[in-house]
Amino acid sequence: MNVLWIYAHPEARSLNGALRDEGLRTLTGLGHRHRQSDLYAMGWNAVVDHADFDQDPDTRLVVGAESKRAYESGGLSADIRREHEKIDWADTIVFQFPLWWFGMPAILKGWFDRVFVKGFAYGVREPNGRTARYGAGTLAGKRAMIIVTAGGGESAFSPRGINGDLDELLFPIQHGTFWYAGLTVLPPLAVFGADRLSEADYEAAAEALRERLQTLDDTPAIAYRKQNTGDYDDDHVLLPDRAAGQRGLSVHRVPQA
Amino acid sequence: MNVLWIYAHPEARSLNGALRDEGLRTLTGLGHRHRQSDLYAMGWNAVVDHADFDQDPDTRLVVGAESKRAYESGGLSADIRREHEKIDWADTIVFQFPLWWFGMPAILKGWFDRVFVKGFAYGVREPNGRTARYGAGTLAGKRAMIIVTAGGGESAFSPRGINGDLDELLFPIQHGTFWYAGLTVLPPLAVFGADRLSEADYEAAAEALRERLQTLDDTPAIAYRKQNTGDYDDDHVLLPDRAAGQRGLSVHRVPQA
Repeated sequence: MNVLWIYAHPEARSLNGALRDEGLRTLTGLGHRHRQSDLYAMGWNAVVDHADFDQDPDTRLVVGAESKRAYESGGLSADIRREHEKIDWADTIVFQFPLWWFGMPAILKGWFDRVFVKGFAYGVREPNGRTARYGAGTLAGKRAMIIVTAGGGESAFSPRGINGDLDELLFPIQHGTFWYAGLTVLPPLAVFGADRLSEADYEAAAEALRERLQTLDDTPAIAYRKQNTGDYDDDHVLLPDRAAGQRGLSVHRVPQA
Repeated sequence: MNVLWIYAHPEARSLNGALRDEGLRTLTGLGHRHRQSDLYAMGWNAVVDHADFDQDPDTRLVVGAESKRAYESGGLSADIRREHEKIDWADTIVFQFPLWWFGMPAILKGWFDRVFVKGFAYGVREPNGRTARYGAGTLAGKRAMIIVTAGGGESAFSPRGINGDLDELLFPIQHGTFWYAGLTVLPPLAVFGADRLSEADYEAAAEALRERLQTLDDTPAIAYRKQNTGDYDDDHVLLPDRAAGQRGLSVHRVPQA
């Protein structure tokens, strides 16, 4: 298996750095190939701008249209094209980051903003003319998984915890980005209380990580609903008889037996 | 009233640029003072790093601890201190951005990552020793409001729309960031179908914006629950008799009569 590991933490001498090293060692031991995008080490530019598209800075920037033109003409900047080449190579993409303000660090958000351009990750059509997204698209067949550390304790991220349920906090990433672009989404691995792990806590986290990597092939994916297979109406609203009477982000999962 | 307007779009000649200009004109007409952080125009650095904290790059970076030390000693970088000074001045902060991958553009996420440091926006205690957050904290008394544009249509962001309910997509920002830091949260103003507005659509959006700015004082805030006033247990889980039997992000609002 080919695994691309996207790492978004400023400090290698950290819990995240230790888990990253453990993860890459484990993949090697399992006989998988891996490549890495260590965003801080690469000095990754997080900010979408004219330069991404080889566009005259005096021209009005319409990001979607301009990104599609540059993607199709080979005019995207070299750093973006290198990430596309890594994604093309990968079967599975791991995104590892600390939860900052209940989301990704800006350097990782900027990876999606700049790399997931129109034509590459969205804005394509199926043969029947429907827009290919949410379970379909150019990245379909590849898998994505989040590894996230959080300072807060697990209870605060539970279904009635004050921070919000972790799965719902990650919805814009897992559903709105991964699934939107066609990626199959594996459940996240979360390490809570990250600022005060004991050695035993760290060992438990490393063991959980190893187990997730050993079972990459078998772990059931999150069963998000597809857009174009009959669950949604033409306005992209869930049909009344699906998750009948319910609302909230969880309605977008297929109920499991 | 003193209004700080944080603008995070790369192109002034855009729907967002036109709405920003309309908004600032309206504030002036109402007799309010305003200041702006036009993040692209400022060349805002989105990425947390040693340099934020005047720290030797060879020292291990522990972001929370280091940011608090630098904040308290006056050692934060000048661009961060300028934003703190603007926030101190403001009664209300408006955050305007296009929804990219169901979240903020990286340049704005990096504004929160770098400006909302420990000691300034979190990590402070109430006199009784409890951590001041979610409805309490150093920024309490100030208000925040999102103005967001989205390419998709309104139905796709409705409570059962495929993108997820807009209020729940914004939960990490409105609840996990604004409310966490003590800010009072005004309902967002959203403009849907942003890539294909007619002139009449634009006029309607501009009118909605003017109305929201005229009623800044009177608009009821989102009634998120406070952490430290009896709704949550000591593990920060909502008490069973609040929103009994329910789960999902909406349980963190006080039910309205």
